Amino acid sequence: MMSVNVRMVDITGKAESERLAVAEGKIRLRRETIEKIRRGEVPKGDVLAVAKTAAIMAVKKTWEIIPLCHPIPITFVDVNFDVMEEELRVRVEVKTTAKTGVEMEALTGASVALLTVWDMVKSLEKDQEGQYPYTEINSIRVVEKVKRQL
Amino acid sequence: MMSVNVRMVDITGKAESERLAVAEGKIRLRRETIEKIRRGEVPKGDVLAVAKTAAIMAVKKTWEIIPLCHPIPITFVDVNFDVMEEELRVRVEVKTTAKTGVEMEALTGASVALLTVWDMVKSLEKDQEGQYPYTEINSIRVVEKVKRQL
Amino acid sequence: MMSVNVRMVDITGKAESERLAVAEGKIRLRRETIEKIRRGEVPKGDVLAVAKTAAIMAVKKTWEIIPLCHPIPITFVDVNFDVMEEELRVRVEVKTTAKTGVEMEALTGASVALLTVWDMVKSLEKDQEGQYPYTEINSIRVVEKVKRQL
Amino acid sequence: MMSVNVRMVDITGKAESERLAVAEGKIRLRRETIEKIRRGEVPKGDVLAVAKTAAIMAVKKTWEIIPLCHPIPITFVDVNFDVMEEELRVRVEVKTTAKTGVEMEALTGASVALLTVWDMVKSLEKDQEGQYPYTEINSIRVVEKVKRQL
Amino acid sequence: MMSVNVRMVDITGKAESERLAVAEGKIRLRRETIEKIRRGEVPKGDVLAVAKTAAIMAVKKTWEIIPLCHPIPITFVDVNFDVMEEELRVRVEVKTTAKTGVEMEALTGASVALLTVWDMVKSLEKDQEGQYPYTEINSIRVVEKVKRQL
Amino acid sequence: MMSVNVRMVDITGKAESERLAVAEGKIRLRRETIEKIRRGEVPKGDVLAVAKTAAIMAVKKTWEIIPLCHPIPITFVDVNFDVMEEELRVRVEVKTTAKTGVEMEALTGASVALLTVWDMVKSLEKDQEGQYPYTEINSIRVVEKVKRQL
Repeated sequence: MMSVNVRMVDITGKAESERLAVAEGKIRLRRETIEKIRRGEVPKGDVLAVAKTAAIMAVKKTWEIIPLCHPIPITFVDVNFDVMEEELRVRVEVKTTAKTGVEMEALTGASVALLTVWDMVKSLEKDQEGQYPYTEINSIRVVEKVKRQL
Repeated sequence: MMSVNVRMVDITGKAESERLAVAEGKIRLRRETIEKIRRGEVPKGDVLAVAKTAAIMAVKKTWEIIPLCHPIPITFVDVNFDVMEEELRVRVEVKTTAKTGVEMEALTGASVALLTVWDMVKSLEKDQEGQYPYTEINSIRVVEKVKRQL
Repeated sequence: MMSVNVRMVDITGKAESERLAVAEGKIRLRRETIEKIRRGEVPKGDVLAVAKTAAIMAVKKTWEIIPLCHPIPITFVDVNFDVMEEELRVRVEVKTTAKTGVEMEALTGASVALLTVWDMVKSLEKDQEGQYPYTEINSIRVVEKVKRQL
Repeated sequence: MMSVNVRMVDITGKAESERLAVAEGKIRLRRETIEKIRRGEVPKGDVLAVAKTAAIMAVKKTWEIIPLCHPIPITFVDVNFDVMEEELRVRVEVKTTAKTGVEMEALTGASVALLTVWDMVKSLEKDQEGQYPYTEINSIRVVEKVKRQL
Repeated sequence: MMSVNVRMVDITGKAESERLAVAEGKIRLRRETIEKIRRGEVPKGDVLAVAKTAAIMAVKKTWEIIPLCHPIPITFVDVNFDVMEEELRVRVEVKTTAKTGVEMEALTGASVALLTVWDMVKSLEKDQEGQYPYTEINSIRVVEKVKRQL
Repeated sequence: MMSVNVRMVDITGKAESERLAVAEGKIRLRRETIEKIRRGEVPKGDVLAVAKTAAIMAVKKTWEIIPLCHPIPITFVDVNFDVMEEELRVRVEVKTTAKTGVEMEALTGASVALLTVWDMVKSLEKDQEGQYPYTEINSIRVVEKVKRQL
């Protein structure tokens, strides 16, 4: 038998714990774009509400997107934004009661929040050639991971 | 009628063009993790093959993940990696013949490739408290976007 | 931090209970369409079997369709129809053992059952201009919701 | 060969046309709930932004939810709400250039918008026994369907 | 750049053709199970209607299930069964107008039809130890593939 | 009430057990194709890594593909291949802690692994008319099913 070198971790025997993970990330945007987000003047609409909704939905679908993630019964997702002068930061918190942690879920949520922000402001970030010389997603990382015995 | 402030762009009247977009991104990893990726010694298996497969599948599902993206008949996806000493870079190229561009698809593919890399090397990147003090995804951006009249 | 005003309910600390929810709804159809459903003469086929299958599948996917719904391990779905003279009624029962109720699942099942019925009889309900002057879905509501401590 | 009585319509030979469909529907809510939606005081947040986002995403997924619907490259979705004294109305417009119409997509969008509204205001609509004696979705119908030769 | 060895075929430059593919397969079942299918006495219900519905839905989702398949706008699916004495055969026909063929779609449809049949008759096929000594899916193959220039 | 003859099994009252199921299957391929798989010379790339990734993802999605399957929190999937002279065999093992067994998940994983292999070697298996006279999937069956009281 050829064991192809792709292995899902076996969590069958693990006990359920209460789990929390927090991930963050940021997107660099033009100052004018940031201004329009603040003023609610982005043509595609309410950037943060759509990005937050997208992030929550992506957190729940992480196991469908990341091949070796286990399906997890997400019990809470929170998504908050910090609108700075030249960038927009996101912080995603995910909770569950499960046999494995939710850091991939939090990271996926942060990534999708920022990708959705980008999609919402595409017309404002593109230059005349239709390129994005300035826009960039950065610093996607796990801020905190907690496991609490039940 | 209250027009809620969320607007999908109307592309009904646009002509189909040949479209290409290239996105890049990178993930900072410990030197030992990079070494294990190079040597094929990561416990969860072939990191780059799984990450590439995940990225291709995510590109095709972008319209399901990013709320205001249009469904697009993807005709090609390529995903390549550059394994540096302290980071792993990904470059995703997407093509289609459609009424709108595929930069969100390329960006989603790059993000999912890097998230999958993270998931594959979790056990190597975690410290003793189960935290990820070093791992970080950065520089997700659109490198090139091309539209060619048919 | 700007807290965007979209909040998933945190059910992490709630105990699991046995849950049941029943939803109903109805679709008004032409008498001739109802007759064809009864006689099994609808060109697209067995309306009720397809609608029931669609409803069961939709119940399981509710968390993918309704943004702030939690993923729930559905343990039972039943879908029954009442074919009246001028309308078709559906009753969807959903059960689970979970931390939150399943009324949204039952409502989604009832809605999808009725939408599927509509799709199956489109050709019989359209008038000569291709419009649907008569067809209408009504009275989608929760009939019963039960929570039983384990 | 037993031909099971379930038949997808064969649209292979049909020409592509520009298609538009508009569907409407409404949900009856308590006056106090309506007031809280107007004032932005619903605990789960911005009801209409989440419902609109959910509706757009559901329109794109209609072929996944309704078994015999063809996959269609949606080019535009618009969702608008009318907040009346005792009910909330939704109007969903869908466009495409395709071989078949988009009325099921518009109807699915309207249904999911209203289901999402319900989910957002659950805590305000439930009575002390956790039942929903008042809430009800009604009048989901196709208002207009247009086909324009290219 | 390390080119990971996973390559989607680039169909961007190919012309659209009318495509048809037919796949077949069969499942071996106990004679008593076959009898119950014929008489409509299977406890889980109408085996062939559910299997056909599942197959049509799977055909449309093939690009989500098979990593390197292109998304294809399916225009027709037909699924027929032949109930023999000791086995049940399925034949799935798929059509599209697209840049690539639909044999993977037809094969996926045939596989899912047979898997669904199995799921529907599980209780009849299991022995006293809960094993399936007799049930087996066989002969999944492409019967015909046609490409017709437009 | 017309009880449409489609019934999901009610597992609400069942206790959770540790579950394991193993399924197998095989695909007949040309000797030259097998040789190219062994040597890593298949143009579409690493056949077994992509097939294994696809199988793991399909196992997790079984409840979405097979209409009456319950959603199950998969805790482990393993996929192994045996490359023979004229055929390739797959063995899929699935584990969970749940109220019902995972044989449909294992069978779906085996089917999708083999379909993905087919997709990866299409260009090598097609004859000059674009037909597949030789390729065939066979012997998909449950090898073992275990239920262990917790």
